Amino acid sequence: MNKSYLKMNRGELLQLREQLRREYKNYKALGLKLDMSRGKPSIKQLNLSMGMMDVFHSESDLKCEDGTDCRNYGVLEGIPEAKRLLASIAEVSPENIMIFGNSSLNVMYDSIVRAFAFGIMGNEPWCRQGEIKFLCPAPGYDRHFRITEAFGFTNIPIPMTPEGPDMDLVEEYVNNDPAVKGIWCVPKYSNPLGISYSDETVKRFAALKPAADDFRIFWDNAYSVHHLYEDRRDVILEILEECMKAGNPDIVYKFTSTSKISFPGSGVAAIASSLANLEDIKKHVTAQTIGHDKLNQLRHVRFFRDRYGVEAQMRRHADILRPKFEMVEDTLELELGGLEIASWTKPLGGYFISFDSLPGCAKAIVAACKEAGVTMTPAGATYPYGKDPKDTNIRIAPSYPDIEELRMAAKLFTLCVKMVSVDMLLEQP
Amino acid sequence: MNKSYLKMNRGELLQLREQLRREYKNYKALGLKLDMSRGKPSIKQLNLSMGMMDVFHSESDLKCEDGTDCRNYGVLEGIPEAKRLLASIAEVSPENIMIFGNSSLNVMYDSIVRAFAFGIMGNEPWCRQGEIKFLCPAPGYDRHFRITEAFGFTNIPIPMTPEGPDMDLVEEYVNNDPAVKGIWCVPKYSNPLGISYSDETVKRFAALKPAADDFRIFWDNAYSVHHLYEDRRDVILEILEECMKAGNPDIVYKFTSTSKISFPGSGVAAIASSLANLEDIKKHVTAQTIGHDKLNQLRHVRFFRDRYGVEAQMRRHADILRPKFEMVEDTLELELGGLEIASWTKPLGGYFISFDSLPGCAKAIVAACKEAGVTMTPAGATYPYGKDPKDTNIRIAPSYPDIEELRMAAKLFTLCVKMVSVDMLLEQP
Repeated sequence: MNKSYLKMNRGELLQLREQLRREYKNYKALGLKLDMSRGKPSIKQLNLSMGMMDVFHSESDLKCEDGTDCRNYGVLEGIPEAKRLLASIAEVSPENIMIFGNSSLNVMYDSIVRAFAFGIMGNEPWCRQGEIKFLCPAPGYDRHFRITEAFGFTNIPIPMTPEGPDMDLVEEYVNNDPAVKGIWCVPKYSNPLGISYSDETVKRFAALKPAADDFRIFWDNAYSVHHLYEDRRDVILEILEECMKAGNPDIVYKFTSTSKISFPGSGVAAIASSLANLEDIKKHVTAQTIGHDKLNQLRHVRFFRDRYGVEAQMRRHADILRPKFEMVEDTLELELGGLEIASWTKPLGGYFISFDSLPGCAKAIVAACKEAGVTMTPAGATYPYGKDPKDTNIRIAPSYPDIEELRMAAKLFTLCVKMVSVDMLLEQP
Repeated sequence: MNKSYLKMNRGELLQLREQLRREYKNYKALGLKLDMSRGKPSIKQLNLSMGMMDVFHSESDLKCEDGTDCRNYGVLEGIPEAKRLLASIAEVSPENIMIFGNSSLNVMYDSIVRAFAFGIMGNEPWCRQGEIKFLCPAPGYDRHFRITEAFGFTNIPIPMTPEGPDMDLVEEYVNNDPAVKGIWCVPKYSNPLGISYSDETVKRFAALKPAADDFRIFWDNAYSVHHLYEDRRDVILEILEECMKAGNPDIVYKFTSTSKISFPGSGVAAIASSLANLEDIKKHVTAQTIGHDKLNQLRHVRFFRDRYGVEAQMRRHADILRPKFEMVEDTLELELGGLEIASWTKPLGGYFISFDSLPGCAKAIVAACKEAGVTMTPAGATYPYGKDPKDTNIRIAPSYPDIEELRMAAKLFTLCVKMVSVDMLLEQP
């Protein structure tokens, strides 16, 4: 058991600082170049889907099941078998699915565009409604927050609890302020906390009574099938069904994609929503494009076949990811356990470990890592406007480096945590 | 030589009408189901690119030339070799290219979105500028007009001449009215006329002195390499270069795609513009997506290799398309030549023949075709708001049906033209 830094006297801390600085200097001399900044699959994971390159050849029949030639124009909402596949991933009925291009982020962005330029279901366009507010459960996904920031909306941070966003606060905002038009959610294995929303949280979302008719929940189910363990898995309630039951069928846009199932950037993204919402969306998308890439839709269906094929693939991903998560968690425990200078999550799925340092240390830790050649997600990125009020949160993405690189990166990271924490403790009066 | 309908007396016209109606009745009995409405490649044309399905297999190295793994996230502006390929099609330098997804229409739409929501290069967003006007050379491409209509802009029709849009009128609007923010152009083998802009027209475009700083030419070079003949080809001046020479480097967005080179809906689209414009665009696209489908970009490059590969492919397309265009033109000449009730274009490339009836007949002709099982593009579609002031223009798309179907469809079309024209002439006092 390590001795708590909080219980060390000044002399001990000074001595420790010298030792840590020497260690750090040695690391720097190694000239590392490692990256734990983004949730990118590793090369081994990408290799899992290489069979997708064999499903089509020059003699293939590229008609989908309704006889449509997938090589030609048309079919705005996606081919039937792709709708079925994405529906099974999203846990909804195929009629509630509309397929888009390669990026669910792009689908979310375009959903904001439609609300901004044309309004949702006959409501006044957001661009003519004055201040627009978006709720941002934080720590959360930086790219979500950046979209609403780009449109000039006010991003309001909502604290996260182990059960999901602070629902008292969400209800207070949504049910009383008509300027609140949306909330960004990653309900399962959330980015970066790795927590999943409790049943009560989902039910409270479904039962919201928004002051604004054009309020929508942006439910980014990015990690719906991205489990790390076979025997311990989070299960969340299906939001469309809950909204329907609560008499709020149109309140949610649910997003999904195969980005971290097949190939990031070459997958298939979709939106799941009520028929009324899909009708409203389709009306506008008709002017935007003739259709998305049906060959890629068909390629995915021929490769995965169905939900079972996807699940088999996700087990293969888990076998690659799990040891990486465990190695980082073990390193954190070994190096930082008992020091009382840090806490971190141990998610059962998703792509991130969320780390919290002593207040005021996160930026300095990330900077020290950077200086020694290990790139982390910028501290603060998980908060709206990049401002972590306590400067504690760091998102760790263990997926991309190979295990030996990761061991090195994790060790260096813990060293930086110690070093910065000691500095901080020494500065305190 | 057929006898001009305009020289027939009432008795002759009445007799002719009876005969035409009998013929029409016989056609209707055939229960045809033919489509000359959209510029879709035929199955034979799609087959030309099936080799693209063989370029990747499960052992392929999917790194692009700079070593980036195309299977993973990233590379917002496109992989270098795809930029080079699309640049060669767009006749610009690769540094002036940014690659997008599968649809150039979507790229145009999103360009409008950016101007609408964020403004062009620091100018006030269009959504806060009151009335926005767009010039629409007509007859033109219905999907262009629909985009600006969707955003609530005022679409102003500009008459077409054999040299391109009426440039006196374009200059008058653009150089004097700051509400005029853009113009839709299909400069080569234009949709639907099939004409190409003269050097003088292109130079006058490049030399515009817009009243609005945020005016842009939307230059949709959809048919840049889509020739029908080997020995007779239209050549147009390259607009980026002309704008540069005229001291207007930022005035144009040029759009291109491989939709009618490889697979419509599964091709690669791009924008070509000045570095300053691309910087402005990239700033916003960064919030929209992590990147487009790099595997599809690489697939295209591996299949076509370079501009020469594309040109070889376009010759194969031409060999399939040319007989169809000629058959329709021959049928029009044989059936309608000398009747003085119609005129039509004989383009050297592109996807359309533009047909003009007697004033007030186009809608009735298209309706008669429909009733007998032949679908044409709705009359009026080639004009803003679907309103052809003289009701004369019909767009003929000969690409999709096979040649025997096309013969039948063209014959029926000419019959409908005759029948409706005779009705019209008989109604006149």
